[in-house]
Amino acid sequence: MESDFLTWLRHRLPAHATGPLGLTDDAALLELRSSDRVLVSADMLMDGVDFVVGQCDPLMIGRKALAVNLSDMAAMAAQPRAALVSLALPRQHGRPLAEAIFEGLLPLAEEYEVRLAGGDTNSWNGPLVIDITVIGEATDRGPLLRSRALPGDEILATGSFGGSILGRHFSFSPRVREALMLHRDFELHAAIDVSDGLALDLSRLAHESGCGAVLRTDQVPLSPAATQLADQNPAAGSALDHALSDGEDFELLIAATPSEVQRILASRPVSVPLARIGRLIEKQGLWQESAASEMKPLAPAGYLHQLDP
Amino acid sequence: MESDFLTWLRHRLPAHATGPLGLTDDAALLELRSSDRVLVSADMLMDGVDFVVGQCDPLMIGRKALAVNLSDMAAMAAQPRAALVSLALPRQHGRPLAEAIFEGLLPLAEEYEVRLAGGDTNSWNGPLVIDITVIGEATDRGPLLRSRALPGDEILATGSFGGSILGRHFSFSPRVREALMLHRDFELHAAIDVSDGLALDLSRLAHESGCGAVLRTDQVPLSPAATQLADQNPAAGSALDHALSDGEDFELLIAATPSEVQRILASRPVSVPLARIGRLIEKQGLWQESAASEMKPLAPAGYLHQLDP
Repeated sequence: MESDFLTWLRHRLPAHATGPLGLTDDAALLELRSSDRVLVSADMLMDGVDFVVGQCDPLMIGRKALAVNLSDMAAMAAQPRAALVSLALPRQHGRPLAEAIFEGLLPLAEEYEVRLAGGDTNSWNGPLVIDITVIGEATDRGPLLRSRALPGDEILATGSFGGSILGRHFSFSPRVREALMLHRDFELHAAIDVSDGLALDLSRLAHESGCGAVLRTDQVPLSPAATQLADQNPAAGSALDHALSDGEDFELLIAATPSEVQRILASRPVSVPLARIGRLIEKQGLWQESAASEMKPLAPAGYLHQLDP
Repeated sequence: MESDFLTWLRHRLPAHATGPLGLTDDAALLELRSSDRVLVSADMLMDGVDFVVGQCDPLMIGRKALAVNLSDMAAMAAQPRAALVSLALPRQHGRPLAEAIFEGLLPLAEEYEVRLAGGDTNSWNGPLVIDITVIGEATDRGPLLRSRALPGDEILATGSFGGSILGRHFSFSPRVREALMLHRDFELHAAIDVSDGLALDLSRLAHESGCGAVLRTDQVPLSPAATQLADQNPAAGSALDHALSDGEDFELLIAATPSEVQRILASRPVSVPLARIGRLIEKQGLWQESAASEMKPLAPAGYLHQLDP
């Protein structure tokens, strides 16, 4: 803990932005509404992997660190309640970097009604690391899981995919409100957020549900950034390739029966575009098809952290 | 996320060691007993600061990362329930390091009935960083805070102080059971765990309570390691100097009325040694006195992360 910084933070945060104990104790007290619907998740971001200090606006680094965690809560259709922010700060210029990170994440915390319940601020001779834990609560319908999709379900996607590296990996809106609204008004079976790549995360949802998935490649919404990347460097893949494997879209994939998907699309309950991009089948694996092409295997491409043995 | 490693971890963990969802979703569901007594804390440990990879047993690194978090729960007299473990792993030999970290913390999690509810496993070109968030629950007496000590209270300490660098910073037992037992059977006013140094953390407890503290320097229990350090290198300070400022003792300082402290000491309710090492006074600041010396100022020495402006 760095006392000067903590003093700054305590003064910077409005009272309603922290928990009932403020930031004064060894742990923070949460104010929750339930004991059996509490959800927790953590995401760690590192300089050189998820952002580059010196090339990126540090406010956007802070914003992203919180936003990726809120996206996990969206995937479970949970209301985020509180966040803990742990920092490993480079010694040089650590203080202004820390302040900028908090200045970047505070507006998002305010927007999503997330309290800053604490964390741990450290300095070292290494690059910046931010680890945020978010505590949230499922609604009385319970959390949406990855594992409850059924063969025959269709897959609904929010937003568009690919090319987030051009900026959207910093500026995206976690789909918390959309998930809560859809989960309240419709019968959803399962969901996941696309953090590592549309193909990879879809394959995970299918795998956890014990089934396979067929992606309608001609119905995947391509982001303008995916098209831009493909135009700039055709050798690195088509816009569709980017949409399938780029990752960090932080859109939701939702599984529901075809009739329920039809009902959702007809009622347009959220302002973000929704698209039907595939279906779940009994046959394990990840598959692709289009109006022009029959079903064939699709590689679950995406971002994986490789660990050396 | 690294899928191979996650698969290893899922198989390594007995079912009762994870939450109800296992480690399969974007967030973990907790099973808590209350909604208004939930406590969270996070501690981040870094290679070169809190341990040195290559010089330290990686099992002990994992153990320490969880133990320091459990110590925060002890300071609040809370029962830890679940932990999230986030890792930034060096790419080279990251996999065996990750396994050893979990092998090191699992026995402690088992001992303290803490579920592993998830986290985030990453690799990068930087040194090892471990950030653990622990979720716990206060008893129906509520959490112990830093801020409720009163002038006239005496300060009770568990264990002994100084020289933890010789090994105890890895092997210490977080005082969870002791805190729960004392908080259940006696009227405690406030508590803090000594992570950054006895003098510094005592000054924090006093400051948060709006009073000052007088340390009885002749009554501070000196650890054998503090004496050993002083013998090895007298120029680096006496055993008492080490006890006051070394940090990472992870013992508890507890404030209670003199009569309650007397009652605790007379009944010997816990097996760890307890000592009365000072008192709280109205006059702000940190002070020292002994049988041989009158009250005079004491520097709140200890470990602080310095952030450059």
